[in-house]
Amino acid sequence: MHTITFQPDRISIRVPDRTTVLEAAQRAGIALNSLCVGAGTCKKCLVQLEHSSEIVLACQTLITEDLTVTIPDTSRFFDQKILEEGIAPEAIIDPCIRKYHVNVPKPDLLDLRSDVQRLIESVTAKAGTDLPESFFLSPSALRELPQGLRQPDFEVTAVCHGNRILSLEPGDTTDVNLGLAVDVGTTTVVAGLVNLINGQTLATASQINPQIVFGEDVISRIQYSTSQNQGLRELQDIIINGLNELIVQLCAKANVNQNQIYEMTAAGNATMQHLLLGVPVAQIAQAPYVAAFSEAVNVSAAQLNVQIHPEANVFVMPGVAAHVGGDTVAVALAAALRQSDKINLAIDIGTNGEILLGNRDRLLACSTAAGPALEGARIRQGMRAAVGAIDRVQIDQTVEINVIGDVKPTGLCGSGLIDAVAELLRRRILDPSGKLLSPDELPDTIPPDLQKRIITLETQTAFVLATSDQSGQADPILLTQRDVREVQLAKAAIAAGIRMLFAELQIEVEDIGRIYLAGAFGNYIQPAAALGIGLLPYLESAKIQPIGNAAFAGAQAVLLSRQARRHAEQLAREIEYVELAGRSDFQDLFTQHLFFPKNGHTETADERR
Amino acid sequence: MHTITFQPDRISIRVPDRTTVLEAAQRAGIALNSLCVGAGTCKKCLVQLEHSSEIVLACQTLITEDLTVTIPDTSRFFDQKILEEGIAPEAIIDPCIRKYHVNVPKPDLLDLRSDVQRLIESVTAKAGTDLPESFFLSPSALRELPQGLRQPDFEVTAVCHGNRILSLEPGDTTDVNLGLAVDVGTTTVVAGLVNLINGQTLATASQINPQIVFGEDVISRIQYSTSQNQGLRELQDIIINGLNELIVQLCAKANVNQNQIYEMTAAGNATMQHLLLGVPVAQIAQAPYVAAFSEAVNVSAAQLNVQIHPEANVFVMPGVAAHVGGDTVAVALAAALRQSDKINLAIDIGTNGEILLGNRDRLLACSTAAGPALEGARIRQGMRAAVGAIDRVQIDQTVEINVIGDVKPTGLCGSGLIDAVAELLRRRILDPSGKLLSPDELPDTIPPDLQKRIITLETQTAFVLATSDQSGQADPILLTQRDVREVQLAKAAIAAGIRMLFAELQIEVEDIGRIYLAGAFGNYIQPAAALGIGLLPYLESAKIQPIGNAAFAGAQAVLLSRQARRHAEQLAREIEYVELAGRSDFQDLFTQHLFFPKNGHTETADERR
Repeated sequence: MHTITFQPDRISIRVPDRTTVLEAAQRAGIALNSLCVGAGTCKKCLVQLEHSSEIVLACQTLITEDLTVTIPDTSRFFDQKILEEGIAPEAIIDPCIRKYHVNVPKPDLLDLRSDVQRLIESVTAKAGTDLPESFFLSPSALRELPQGLRQPDFEVTAVCHGNRILSLEPGDTTDVNLGLAVDVGTTTVVAGLVNLINGQTLATASQINPQIVFGEDVISRIQYSTSQNQGLRELQDIIINGLNELIVQLCAKANVNQNQIYEMTAAGNATMQHLLLGVPVAQIAQAPYVAAFSEAVNVSAAQLNVQIHPEANVFVMPGVAAHVGGDTVAVALAAALRQSDKINLAIDIGTNGEILLGNRDRLLACSTAAGPALEGARIRQGMRAAVGAIDRVQIDQTVEINVIGDVKPTGLCGSGLIDAVAELLRRRILDPSGKLLSPDELPDTIPPDLQKRIITLETQTAFVLATSDQSGQADPILLTQRDVREVQLAKAAIAAGIRMLFAELQIEVEDIGRIYLAGAFGNYIQPAAALGIGLLPYLESAKIQPIGNAAFAGAQAVLLSRQARRHAEQLAREIEYVELAGRSDFQDLFTQHLFFPKNGHTETADERR
Repeated sequence: MHTITFQPDRISIRVPDRTTVLEAAQRAGIALNSLCVGAGTCKKCLVQLEHSSEIVLACQTLITEDLTVTIPDTSRFFDQKILEEGIAPEAIIDPCIRKYHVNVPKPDLLDLRSDVQRLIESVTAKAGTDLPESFFLSPSALRELPQGLRQPDFEVTAVCHGNRILSLEPGDTTDVNLGLAVDVGTTTVVAGLVNLINGQTLATASQINPQIVFGEDVISRIQYSTSQNQGLRELQDIIINGLNELIVQLCAKANVNQNQIYEMTAAGNATMQHLLLGVPVAQIAQAPYVAAFSEAVNVSAAQLNVQIHPEANVFVMPGVAAHVGGDTVAVALAAALRQSDKINLAIDIGTNGEILLGNRDRLLACSTAAGPALEGARIRQGMRAAVGAIDRVQIDQTVEINVIGDVKPTGLCGSGLIDAVAELLRRRILDPSGKLLSPDELPDTIPPDLQKRIITLETQTAFVLATSDQSGQADPILLTQRDVREVQLAKAAIAAGIRMLFAELQIEVEDIGRIYLAGAFGNYIQPAAALGIGLLPYLESAKIQPIGNAAFAGAQAVLLSRQARRHAEQLAREIEYVELAGRSDFQDLFTQHLFFPKNGHTETADERR
């Protein structure tokens, strides 16, 4: 065993001989960037050894003696701009959690009904036609009942989920009714404490999904769950613990007690929802790729060890398929796709791009393996949308960049990447085939400053977005030919997925009313740039609308409204899943869409035909 | 190993050397009476050896060679008469736990339904019209689902409780379906492992209720639950642990796994049922004496920590009121009171006497505080029906006694007490006012041996049932004047309770069809003696019928039949509870019935008017 100390955290732990520094950091609860899950290829987990000042990859460095390492901020997995807000669909406030304030008749020799019966009759009378079915008590409410009635002299508020009485609160507490909406993203977890009386969000909190120490993407977490004996359990425990930390924060912010929260709703992709419930995920990653469940699930908070009222209900959003999960249903809900006469398109871009197309008549969905390029992975100097990331690029006489956090740039995030490619296309420095022109291939119209920025790195062409002087690192920030190829692949996958759904519905782009962009990426991307590289079919920018964190908005909607919950379940049943795997027509479309649009800002006539 | 054959069942099994015949019968799935749980004291397990025609106690006979034994009906755990007259003939076997063997279609690219959906559709198709509602999975079944389907190559048996899928078993396990019926008595706990396919009891086991260490009767346990901080918890834990021991025994006897048991049904008085579920009981012992719940309760085995399948359902019998619990509903069920045109009376005598009177039109119930005298408590030399107890008394020229266990007597149990009082009344040594006559008050007809037995002890008169020579103790076994007074109080309470119900229904004793006696005491008592002291209204002995352990029979009935379960719930709602506390008409009747019948074996004309 050796002792490893992490600086500047001042955290020391003991680890067995030949543990990697990355693994040790994970055990110490420190999340490092690791896009390649320890393969040594992404070079995101750089740390400095104290004794030699040497900079090494944490994932490739074995601990063979006591060691102190310093972790630079750039190697940490944090700081990402987390999108907490989404558009709230209009919904009447009509939560599943209802409170009934009742004065229960006291027992006497002429009224010897059991406590349960006298309570239920009072609550039934109060609920009126609210609920046709008869009420019943949860086991813990039953155990608390005799004192729960007598201590407040039989004046109580019954807290009900449907016809189930979860708890009794003394006196009249109908002015407080709290719920929790959670978006369990692969990267980030967002939780909101919601007032179920007026729909107001009292507090929000977010954190990096702590499962990130087991891998940044869904596939690596699935692998971890199966490669380790207790892997699934570990993944579940760590996300539940993370949620519990958020709950503590939310309750402190809003000055409420955790036991006052009687329902939690959660939305995420199928893997996140499975892991939240501790359901095995191996089959999601193996052909033919099926989910254990796509149906909505209700469990008690106690069963999940979520630290709200133990009898609280946890509702997990229904999904459609292994790759079209509860988060995609939330997008459909948030964008009200099934309420529209007009056909709309909604896209949620991450490692997978989930695409929805349709209206009140039919609604189709597919998922394309866009890869993590648009999230900054596999890009030479790619990074998440965190401090130091170039998120906006404009190229005219020279290059204008915007950097998150008002610091010198250290890398390039997804929206900056799309901007850069779109601008290079527009300036014809990049040709439609995706080739970065060499200085001698450039048109004469290109200003000298831009010409100077085209360099050769090893054997490939690259474009300097920020020079060494401008850069926050020793090296300039580059966009390489290989980076452009990654963008092409991602763009082609999404564009082809969209065209597959067009074909399935037998429509053209002209038939589309709006394009909704969900999630962090959709919020930060510049519509013009996305159109410019052909990621989206051409539609005027005004019709392209970011809808924010739809998974969170969806979780909030089903928390607030029984109607929205029914609607989500209906959506999950009615959305028609289009499987792209193994389809030759998809492969054809994918190949076609590897090319960028010819004029750099609209689709080619060819594409629009 | 020896072979033992049971007749007339024609069942043979192989058992190890020195197994008792009782245990062998249990292993063979034949339930014998064993009120003393194999102690050799109750003498209810008599069987006849074929080779010698000798009649022996099954529990005391070791098998040392191949053997054939004949089991008389009277030694069987269920008196056949009970089952004929009770619920059994009508109860089709129709348990809540159902198993569906299905070959679930495997997923492929053309069938990407979730595991849940493909399972549920298969089960729904198999269940047919069995269940109108849609099936859903328990949280643990959901977690086990992906492997549960794939390991047995998608051939599984779904174990369902109603529309809830509790578990998946690999392959076809529809030939095994097990349940557990439990009678949680204040004194004894009886558990039976039941084959839910054919209704057969595979094994039974019993033990003294381990809560007895916290007090013998209900009131002392209620006091303990409130006097100690963790008292309620302790009482719950100890009974659950006791049940778990019985479950281990039953599973070993029947060679099954505890996880194969998917439902448990339990019946007991309200206090026992509350304690089983960990529900506070203080209000049961305080005016106006109400139960926290009288409704049927369903909880999962995991919630109760009962060691059968964690998702198994535990059904707790519905009751009527704090003093008319699930055990009394079980009596009504076992005696089929609501199926009868004729008005019948059913009595369960313990510390309280629960009384039921009625027919298909109306059914009334009350509970009278008979006190523990009839169970041997508060009687100078009273004891439970254990080895050494005088259980039968006949007084002619001298006193003939029967002692449990063929030893010298050490005390007097309830049935001996009733016998003694009835016989002394008949011989006019006791007068109808309850006065034990002194030697000089005795009629001349009393033989000298009996005259000698009337002695003065301290200041009271007493009758010697067993002399010092006959006694197993230094002192003679006496029935004292004070003992007689205790009997009078108990008898008056029960008799007055019966008359209250007669008045309520406006009937006379002549309108009664049968009297059913439930429980151990009802099984031991001599009908003639009970009539003799006026405990029961006068009816010819043939119409007085013991119905055995009705609580257990009721638990078994609701385990085997959904119809019986509905019937129990209906009974609980429809039985009209008559509260006796504070009623002056009950006080009047109680005072009237303090007197014994004048002629010592029938009611007085006065009483019958």
